[in-house]
Amino acid sequence: MFKNFQQVLQFNTTGRGTSNISREVADVASQSGVHEGLCHVFIHHTSASLILCENADPTVRSDLERFMSELVPDGSRMFQHVDEGPDDMPAHVRSILTKMDLTIPVTAGRLALGTWQGIYLWEHRTHPHRRRITVTVQGS
Amino acid sequence: MFKNFQQVLQFNTTGRGTSNISREVADVASQSGVHEGLCHVFIHHTSASLILCENADPTVRSDLERFMSELVPDGSRMFQHVDEGPDDMPAHVRSILTKMDLTIPVTAGRLALGTWQGIYLWEHRTHPHRRRITVTVQGS
Amino acid sequence: MFKNFQQVLQFNTTGRGTSNISREVADVASQSGVHEGLCHVFIHHTSASLILCENADPTVRSDLERFMSELVPDGSRMFQHVDEGPDDMPAHVRSILTKMDLTIPVTAGRLALGTWQGIYLWEHRTHPHRRRITVTVQGS
Repeated sequence: MFKNFQQVLQFNTTGRGTSNISREVADVASQSGVHEGLCHVFIHHTSASLILCENADPTVRSDLERFMSELVPDGSRMFQHVDEGPDDMPAHVRSILTKMDLTIPVTAGRLALGTWQGIYLWEHRTHPHRRRITVTVQGS
Repeated sequence: MFKNFQQVLQFNTTGRGTSNISREVADVASQSGVHEGLCHVFIHHTSASLILCENADPTVRSDLERFMSELVPDGSRMFQHVDEGPDDMPAHVRSILTKMDLTIPVTAGRLALGTWQGIYLWEHRTHPHRRRITVTVQGS
Repeated sequence: MFKNFQQVLQFNTTGRGTSNISREVADVASQSGVHEGLCHVFIHHTSASLILCENADPTVRSDLERFMSELVPDGSRMFQHVDEGPDDMPAHVRSILTKMDLTIPVTAGRLALGTWQGIYLWEHRTHPHRRRITVTVQGS
């Protein structure tokens, strides 16, 4: 039988940076009872994003953060939308470049991530935020 | 019962810039009769893209356009593919960086966008184009 | 009846560059027996990605490669994660900017790509690698 399973997760971020949420998403995939199908992860915000990133060496994420900070500089004079501070518009640009949705296969009842793939919530604002994520699993 | 609902939408763009297509996509999600599931949006082109962006302050989109125009400059000497003009290759790069597909949860019969999230068609060519989008809704 | 069909594909890359895998993915979509639905493509790695790109003029892909090589330079002093060489960390950044998952509509039993859209596996490492991709087709 084809199933649809949906669950909301909430995460408190500690400001700009990445958090590994692979376990929480994998748990929803397991609970769904789906043997083969897809797991969709969605963040309901425009200043935080979801990425698949190497999960072994933490310098990958610090290098990634450095790259993004140079690509989209906080406080750039290019930006007029500064209502909430110098990290406001960069957070929107960073989210659009790295995306708010992600779909991963479910195979043999488990989230089929590659060995080195982790799912990360990337907070782009400098201050802590509460972030809402919806996980939807579909399959048989 | 598990449903699959698919509909094609057409939009006439007025040249480079973003158009909010959230209402049109939400209408398809409603018509599908899906209570809980996923809504997939796909643009059948390589020089226009689909993004989720802040939907309240229009300067967010003008800032985004300015950022992208500096990142991928029209008429850059880097590009050899200039058959259709100085915005030709930049339109391809911009589309690849911002993507042509998007998946959003459907919850309680409605497209579950965050409060500040809007779905935008981003035309990357300077001249107007007719753009074709397929919306597919799956769920129960 | 709603179907779920999943198949693993393997590709040997010849080092950095793009390979058109549209035919292989379209074959899985055809084999699935799905008339209308979605086809999801996923690469189980963090240093190679999947893109939709113009499929007619090869200079589009060489221009794209040039753009990305300038955006994320190999051997940049910005990067500390250099365990596997100067293309190691750039490969992670390039993959995150271009994504590892892709979803395409299936319409009338066929993968509904636009006329100029091709699915490309983009190898970001300079050396050849064996890459694993899972294709999942869902629909009725």
